[in-house]
Amino acid sequence: MTVKQLSLPELVEACLELGVPGVGLWRDPVRSYGVEATAKLVRDAGLSVTTLCRGGFLTAIDRDERARALADNRAAVEEAATLGTDTLVLVSGGLPVGNKDLYGARERIADALGELGPYAAGQGVRLAIEPLHPMYASDRCVVSTLAQALDLAERFPADQVGVTVDTYHIWWDDNAPAQIARAGAGGRIHTFQLADWTTPLPAGVLNGRGQIGDGSIDMRQWRSYVEAAGYAGPIEVELFNETLWARDGREVLAETAARFVQHVIR
Amino acid sequence: MTVKQLSLPELVEACLELGVPGVGLWRDPVRSYGVEATAKLVRDAGLSVTTLCRGGFLTAIDRDERARALADNRAAVEEAATLGTDTLVLVSGGLPVGNKDLYGARERIADALGELGPYAAGQGVRLAIEPLHPMYASDRCVVSTLAQALDLAERFPADQVGVTVDTYHIWWDDNAPAQIARAGAGGRIHTFQLADWTTPLPAGVLNGRGQIGDGSIDMRQWRSYVEAAGYAGPIEVELFNETLWARDGREVLAETAARFVQHVIR
Repeated sequence: MTVKQLSLPELVEACLELGVPGVGLWRDPVRSYGVEATAKLVRDAGLSVTTLCRGGFLTAIDRDERARALADNRAAVEEAATLGTDTLVLVSGGLPVGNKDLYGARERIADALGELGPYAAGQGVRLAIEPLHPMYASDRCVVSTLAQALDLAERFPADQVGVTVDTYHIWWDDNAPAQIARAGAGGRIHTFQLADWTTPLPAGVLNGRGQIGDGSIDMRQWRSYVEAAGYAGPIEVELFNETLWARDGREVLAETAARFVQHVIR
Repeated sequence: MTVKQLSLPELVEACLELGVPGVGLWRDPVRSYGVEATAKLVRDAGLSVTTLCRGGFLTAIDRDERARALADNRAAVEEAATLGTDTLVLVSGGLPVGNKDLYGARERIADALGELGPYAAGQGVRLAIEPLHPMYASDRCVVSTLAQALDLAERFPADQVGVTVDTYHIWWDDNAPAQIARAGAGGRIHTFQLADWTTPLPAGVLNGRGQIGDGSIDMRQWRSYVEAAGYAGPIEVELFNETLWARDGREVLAETAARFVQHVIR
């Protein structure tokens, strides 16, 4: 999504040129290109698929809507398995229209995980609950903190349900470092994603994630937290940013790789 | 601020007509009208001033900037005392430009409170740290949760430093009800403010606070939390909303009073 202006073949080629060893994919472009075709494209290039984004949206009260959500998540699990990634990221969903019950919504997510977790594990896929920044609590994700995500995940085995640690969503939370340690101790850090926090936020607050190094987040510090918690998996950079999308995708990818080296690795 | 399109005399008249017994004031309109003149206007009308907003912005590293902030906060304390309110709301301030250290910023706030708390208490004014929604953490307020606000406030006597409980900022936080109980037990709920959470958020995310009843927050529930914690003071409605500001101020105030009765009192 960081360079969604690139087609999948262009993306793969640019990753190879830059030495980027793996890529997190989103379902829409994958399905447009074809799930099998994408799997072959990436596999032939020697790239790993770090995660598939995203399942989730599991908070519906309406029975039909809930059934559709579960079916869609099973499809996402199958796509993840076909792509060869072991991790499906979940954006849990917001409040149903007119509803004000965050607790009830979280319980419905737990119910859905009870169905989806074993199904995913049966295909070698782990679900990774992503706490989203509290500014998305009403309309996208009632799971706003790592603590809440772990409270949900820990009801299930770690090979079924874990968490996504994304700096953009948790950087403000002084409780997050302890929760990263908790997640690591339980083997539940299923992926680690980076985006920087920049202001002013754009209307709708969806597409204002900052390029690494442009904002307020100390990336090296968060990397040290997940590493101290035992995480040794891929680090993904996931930027939703209209300004970056308007630029040449290969240039943005090269810039992102350079920023990654500068602000995360060194 | 909910009806900032009204002049102070218009506001006072509208409050009297609607039976609104008290009003929270902001410094800018008060200073434009004159602090003494405002105090007389409100006092003669028999209205109480519930709080003065706002002091704060105490995170500067630069020595001169810090000295200016402290002087400005002392002036705010004096204005509060003149207006006859016992509570000055604090918006603590964001990260200095280029700085990424939230912890350090919070410590500088604590240092400043050590100077300002005794000064305020000497004039019968309590400081009320307002945790702001985490979406303001970088540019307005590094204090993002009630727990963080109380961690700061509890370093000082309750008649010097407490907290502002504002539904808009904390509604997403499943830890907030317990923190309200903690604040109440310590006599530190210095004011209780309401605004509803509506989406999509506007660019800059400052002026999208929803009219009571329009959004995702269960106002009665939050009222029950503060009352169970022993709070029996005024309840303020504080809406920053371009749409409301563009309407007739008396009509907005009447609507707000009606919504308050409907969603908070009944």
